[in-house]
Amino acid sequence: MPVTDIATRVYNHGWRLDPVVRSLLDTDFYKLLMLQMIRRLHPEVTATFSLINRSKHVRLAEVIDEAELREQLDHARSLRFGKKELIWLAGNSFYGKQRMFSPEFLDWLARFQLPDYGLRTVDGQFELHFDGPWAETTMWEIPALAIVNELRSRAALKGKGRFELDILYARAKAKLWDKVERLRALPDLVLSDFGTRRRHGFLWQRWCVEALKEGLGDRFIGSSNVLLAMDNDLEAIGTNAHELPMVMAALAPDDAGVAAAPYRVLEEWQALYDGNLLIALPDAFGTTAFLRNAPDWLADWTGFRPDSMPPIEGGEQIIDWWQAHGRDPRRKLLIFSDGMDVDSIEATYRHFHGRVRMSFGWGTNLTNDFRDCDPAGAAGLEPISLVAKVISADGHPAVKLSDNPAKATGDPAEIERYLRIFGEDGRHAKAVRV
Amino acid sequence: MPVTDIATRVYNHGWRLDPVVRSLLDTDFYKLLMLQMIRRLHPEVTATFSLINRSKHVRLAEVIDEAELREQLDHARSLRFGKKELIWLAGNSFYGKQRMFSPEFLDWLARFQLPDYGLRTVDGQFELHFDGPWAETTMWEIPALAIVNELRSRAALKGKGRFELDILYARAKAKLWDKVERLRALPDLVLSDFGTRRRHGFLWQRWCVEALKEGLGDRFIGSSNVLLAMDNDLEAIGTNAHELPMVMAALAPDDAGVAAAPYRVLEEWQALYDGNLLIALPDAFGTTAFLRNAPDWLADWTGFRPDSMPPIEGGEQIIDWWQAHGRDPRRKLLIFSDGMDVDSIEATYRHFHGRVRMSFGWGTNLTNDFRDCDPAGAAGLEPISLVAKVISADGHPAVKLSDNPAKATGDPAEIERYLRIFGEDGRHAKAVRV
Repeated sequence: MPVTDIATRVYNHGWRLDPVVRSLLDTDFYKLLMLQMIRRLHPEVTATFSLINRSKHVRLAEVIDEAELREQLDHARSLRFGKKELIWLAGNSFYGKQRMFSPEFLDWLARFQLPDYGLRTVDGQFELHFDGPWAETTMWEIPALAIVNELRSRAALKGKGRFELDILYARAKAKLWDKVERLRALPDLVLSDFGTRRRHGFLWQRWCVEALKEGLGDRFIGSSNVLLAMDNDLEAIGTNAHELPMVMAALAPDDAGVAAAPYRVLEEWQALYDGNLLIALPDAFGTTAFLRNAPDWLADWTGFRPDSMPPIEGGEQIIDWWQAHGRDPRRKLLIFSDGMDVDSIEATYRHFHGRVRMSFGWGTNLTNDFRDCDPAGAAGLEPISLVAKVISADGHPAVKLSDNPAKATGDPAEIERYLRIFGEDGRHAKAVRV
Repeated sequence: MPVTDIATRVYNHGWRLDPVVRSLLDTDFYKLLMLQMIRRLHPEVTATFSLINRSKHVRLAEVIDEAELREQLDHARSLRFGKKELIWLAGNSFYGKQRMFSPEFLDWLARFQLPDYGLRTVDGQFELHFDGPWAETTMWEIPALAIVNELRSRAALKGKGRFELDILYARAKAKLWDKVERLRALPDLVLSDFGTRRRHGFLWQRWCVEALKEGLGDRFIGSSNVLLAMDNDLEAIGTNAHELPMVMAALAPDDAGVAAAPYRVLEEWQALYDGNLLIALPDAFGTTAFLRNAPDWLADWTGFRPDSMPPIEGGEQIIDWWQAHGRDPRRKLLIFSDGMDVDSIEATYRHFHGRVRMSFGWGTNLTNDFRDCDPAGAAGLEPISLVAKVISADGHPAVKLSDNPAKATGDPAEIERYLRIFGEDGRHAKAVRV
């Protein structure tokens, strides 16, 4: 019995590419739900997505080789949904519902490939754009982010010795498990993995998901990552994202149309989905403005996912709104998912416990927390605030205001216009770390 | 390229025995130095060694299967020194000296095998004896301890899931590395691995040794484990042990001979060895008594290894003794090796820094510290105080008094006699943890 298997060793030393993304299911579940809606209701809309690095101090193009990035993006473009994957999407139940995806949509998915991309390097940063039908470009968001983040991790680890890597991952595992043990102390915790886009790497996300499954049992309800949900028999978790109101608002003919866009999105959504998928994301143009003008029927939805507002402040505003609309918050659901970590999960859990149903989407601080893990103390593994946002739809600029002005995206003149439409109530700048 | 190599998998699932000891070099270096002296000066002496579990609360025979223990002991008996190993012993320099081992001794080693053992289970504990020529039975000390300790670790880990084990070792690695980083802050530290006998397991000791080599660089001067020293191009570290004065005293015809035994051992030692091997172990029958009657020429030796006395108290007594004999302690060496861990290494280092040369032998707390590492919180990995001691020589009972009455071994009547001969000055009971 040889200690070193020569075929494995030669293969390991000689491969052409170690793909970051190996399956089109390696994406977030909400992309598929939104995609089905886009295909059904907005098949003709074109949308441009763009990579935005909010952590300007990290000069990504000086860390990641552009040619290597192209290779990974090209590889992702070569992928198709596999037969087993399509059968699973057709046969699995999601959120307790059978046949979530229509046969027509699955037929279309079977032929899907990621569209072309535009990439150039400007002043140490990548300009990475995806132009084309919304129903195609939207699918780049997650793989593009996962690729850039993992290539950055790989660059930070390049040249490290076996021992340094051994310690680094041992510490990261020990660190995550300490978090798991703290979370275990919260008896009614409901938590899911939202960490695909900012993950250290695919294999590490997989380890983290398996750790939560092992450590939290039923309290870990699933993963936003469709591939990991399938492979681990977990629930695929997710509903919708900012791109829906952003595109709707961009397409609106006038200011009144912009103001109505967030609610029109919800009407479209509830025409397709129901039950626990009726979760509203209120902060695209400011949570306070959203709630002020929200229709009464929204109070019949299952819940909200407050995002860019601090969790306790956002949750309280929403609870007030439910009460003002005569609903009992204890029957409603709040999903917290913005930059959460154990401290903020514990604080939020304790604050709202017994007053409302809660669920946590744990992202970057689950799948990319290597702080103090590198024996050499390098900063190359610090997570950065990288997003892929829609920047225009049918040629009209798209805007996100967010509750946190530091997270606003879009043309400054358009942002001014949106601020006039929605107002600035409740918006406070806070540092964006992840 | 198959993900699972079927041959490896079948081999892993089907092997007959996973040996704890795979080489006769997997022992402590001092055994070889003492063995050469025993062979040269006392080839006719017989000695019985016995396993002594000072951690009575751990009922070893209820944890370890007796048949499994026999298999491991039998496997150790099947070992011979390998050709490469004998060439290395002949060709390597030890403590800066070429040809440490005589050709006659190496010839004899080439034919060496561990002698038979006697094993039975009494009241939940193993009675494990080794009877025969001292030059054979002495070599059981380390493999017997390593086998029992590793079988105990394996029993504690049996049935654990992959994930639990992954976390357990990740934590242990992270924990050791935190210790390494603390030790790095001591600029003149000189440290070696003394952890063979109490190790969690062979592979773990190897990992620990590689960690110290990587993390401490030149400050890590070597390992007491001869095999690991050879494999990692490290110095093999060690001099002599309590068994020498214990056997000499047991063989003495009268009380005067017993009183003289510790010094006669040193005369014999310096007839064979010199330089940095001239390290006296003063505590077999109490350090205070030893120093009171020690000959002046001992002050020319390189140093002492204070053992069962608390390190600062023991070191101070020895420094006083050097000064009383007109020697400058700054040119002398103290080796601290009794149950040391980072806290006591730091405290001892700071206490004596600049006043004497120091070196640390780090044992159980290096190679068997899994406290708080087991996600299930089991106590089965807590190190225990297990020793293999000479209990008689040529039929006469052997005694160790130690500075710590809790570490005394031997027949109670004989202990009384030895206490009359050596007195009780400086002996204080303290709890023995490892």
